[in-house]
Amino acid sequence: MPTFTVFKGSKEGKIVQSQTTKPDLTDDQVLIKVTASGLCGTDEHYKHVDMGLGHEGVGIVDATGPNVKNLQKGDRVGWGYVHWSCGTCDLCLTGRDQYCSQVQRYGEANFDQGSFASHAVWNESHIFRIPDNMTDVEAAPLMCGGATVWTALQSYNIKSTDRVGVMGIGGLGHLAIQFAAKMGCEVVVFSSSDSKKDEAMKLGASEFIVTKGKKELEISKKVNVLVVTTSFNPDWSVILPCLAPQSFIFPLTVDSGDFAIPQVPLIVGGYTIQGSIVASRPIHRSMLNFASHHSVKPITMEFPMTVEGITNAMDTLREGRMKYRGVLVPQ
Amino acid sequence: MPTFTVFKGSKEGKIVQSQTTKPDLTDDQVLIKVTASGLCGTDEHYKHVDMGLGHEGVGIVDATGPNVKNLQKGDRVGWGYVHWSCGTCDLCLTGRDQYCSQVQRYGEANFDQGSFASHAVWNESHIFRIPDNMTDVEAAPLMCGGATVWTALQSYNIKSTDRVGVMGIGGLGHLAIQFAAKMGCEVVVFSSSDSKKDEAMKLGASEFIVTKGKKELEISKKVNVLVVTTSFNPDWSVILPCLAPQSFIFPLTVDSGDFAIPQVPLIVGGYTIQGSIVASRPIHRSMLNFASHHSVKPITMEFPMTVEGITNAMDTLREGRMKYRGVLVPQ
Repeated sequence: MPTFTVFKGSKEGKIVQSQTTKPDLTDDQVLIKVTASGLCGTDEHYKHVDMGLGHEGVGIVDATGPNVKNLQKGDRVGWGYVHWSCGTCDLCLTGRDQYCSQVQRYGEANFDQGSFASHAVWNESHIFRIPDNMTDVEAAPLMCGGATVWTALQSYNIKSTDRVGVMGIGGLGHLAIQFAAKMGCEVVVFSSSDSKKDEAMKLGASEFIVTKGKKELEISKKVNVLVVTTSFNPDWSVILPCLAPQSFIFPLTVDSGDFAIPQVPLIVGGYTIQGSIVASRPIHRSMLNFASHHSVKPITMEFPMTVEGITNAMDTLREGRMKYRGVLVPQ
Repeated sequence: MPTFTVFKGSKEGKIVQSQTTKPDLTDDQVLIKVTASGLCGTDEHYKHVDMGLGHEGVGIVDATGPNVKNLQKGDRVGWGYVHWSCGTCDLCLTGRDQYCSQVQRYGEANFDQGSFASHAVWNESHIFRIPDNMTDVEAAPLMCGGATVWTALQSYNIKSTDRVGVMGIGGLGHLAIQFAAKMGCEVVVFSSSDSKKDEAMKLGASEFIVTKGKKELEISKKVNVLVVTTSFNPDWSVILPCLAPQSFIFPLTVDSGDFAIPQVPLIVGGYTIQGSIVASRPIHRSMLNFASHHSVKPITMEFPMTVEGITNAMDTLREGRMKYRGVLVPQ
């Protein structure tokens, strides 16, 4: 029986190479040969689970099921965190399919699959074409990291006249800077040290604020949007004075703890704390179009798609040495 | 020199009766003879401060300054939490004057004044006419309590087709039920016991859920708006399963602690935590019109406007015996 290679987590937290049976394609299933996969912080959370890792996949269509309508063998495609949604509920019908109650997300659709793999089989309905002027390695980090920041910036009426703070320069932050700047926004970056300042300014920031050890920050003008991409919540007593009234705060990191903010400033400032996750399909498509048009490109480090390569990439991310998104590439 | 009576907080937390000099009215100042004042939970926070208490004032115009344009002696008026804003900043010019950086709120404008008083002097710009079909006692609790819940319900695109949860039946909650029901919304009340069930249903609720001791709640259909009027944050593990994706949560209570919510559900559910405080002037006026048209009336307990009456009212509120808003009335 034909099989393909999948790299999974395990109880011990070690990456394990295993074989998944290649199914006969039914309905709108598509077999994709993986050519690149981004590594997301969420993968770290699942490395202790016996499931296929990776949800920033890019590859080439290798075969199509009987009801596939728009894709054919040889097409270059990608997929992300959401694998399937019902298509008929109010949320699906109003462009918010990532919140569908039947949604199948990372790991939920099929424990024997992921984008850390030689191949994958998913439904055409949740697979996206990759624009021609984007390489596989460039496209992969957009599938979750790009989609996450783009959803925040696009779904809540952020305007080109807004002043957007980006907290943290990593896989998400370095894309948020680019997207917000290309949307026409002023971008203020908050980072612990000034080591990434030059890069942040090149990516489109117009102001850079070092936070480490500071009890008070100097900012030329308050921001009215704050995209928090750090894996910890900020010291609000330091950050809130940098926010204009009625600011939007997007805590984007998946964190098992609480999101906490002092209640009086929250109320008196009229702030909005906006939960937001990846992208609906229309937003995902608009993200790829926008990135293509404006040459928004992730800064990547490549690792081989092997047990050693994945382990090395995860170590690099965990130890804060990733600049800025790891991409696994089959050898 | 003429004076008027004001009831203030004090270091020891005792209510103190004192005299404030009646100023010569300048500019658009208006002298109001107080006829009723609501008691708000916020007053409790300030009873240890040497300042005039009360910010739900209703009274009769007694005299007007040289630049007063639209009010005259004998007019029935009210005022609330916001005493002055600049009128020229972007926030003031776009109907969000309660967030103006120069705003003067409760206690900030003049420490020698409040609505627990015989008289008050404020600017015409932040004084509201009281509709004819509303008594002074009925109008007073709307000035802060009503304005607070109305701002949440009116400023964030809540629609008549929404299903609104109201958590807690007190000064704010019993008004939120009425306003939301009259807006056409389905209203679900969450309360610790069923002691207020009949009253909540009469006020317009269509479902009543008892929360005390429950690890899991039965709700016929999830709400997509939650107005939290309890003075403590709910047990989210019990409440979040009652919220539809992308629900709006309004924590309305002034609490010196943190607002905290588990981050993963916040993100995956796409919830909005919306900080919101009292009312801009246009929203305040629309609240009075709406309450007048729909006969939204607070349920009140009256107390005499004396040291003993105020002390008694504050005890009643603190001990959870107020049904549902205390109103102080001059003897």
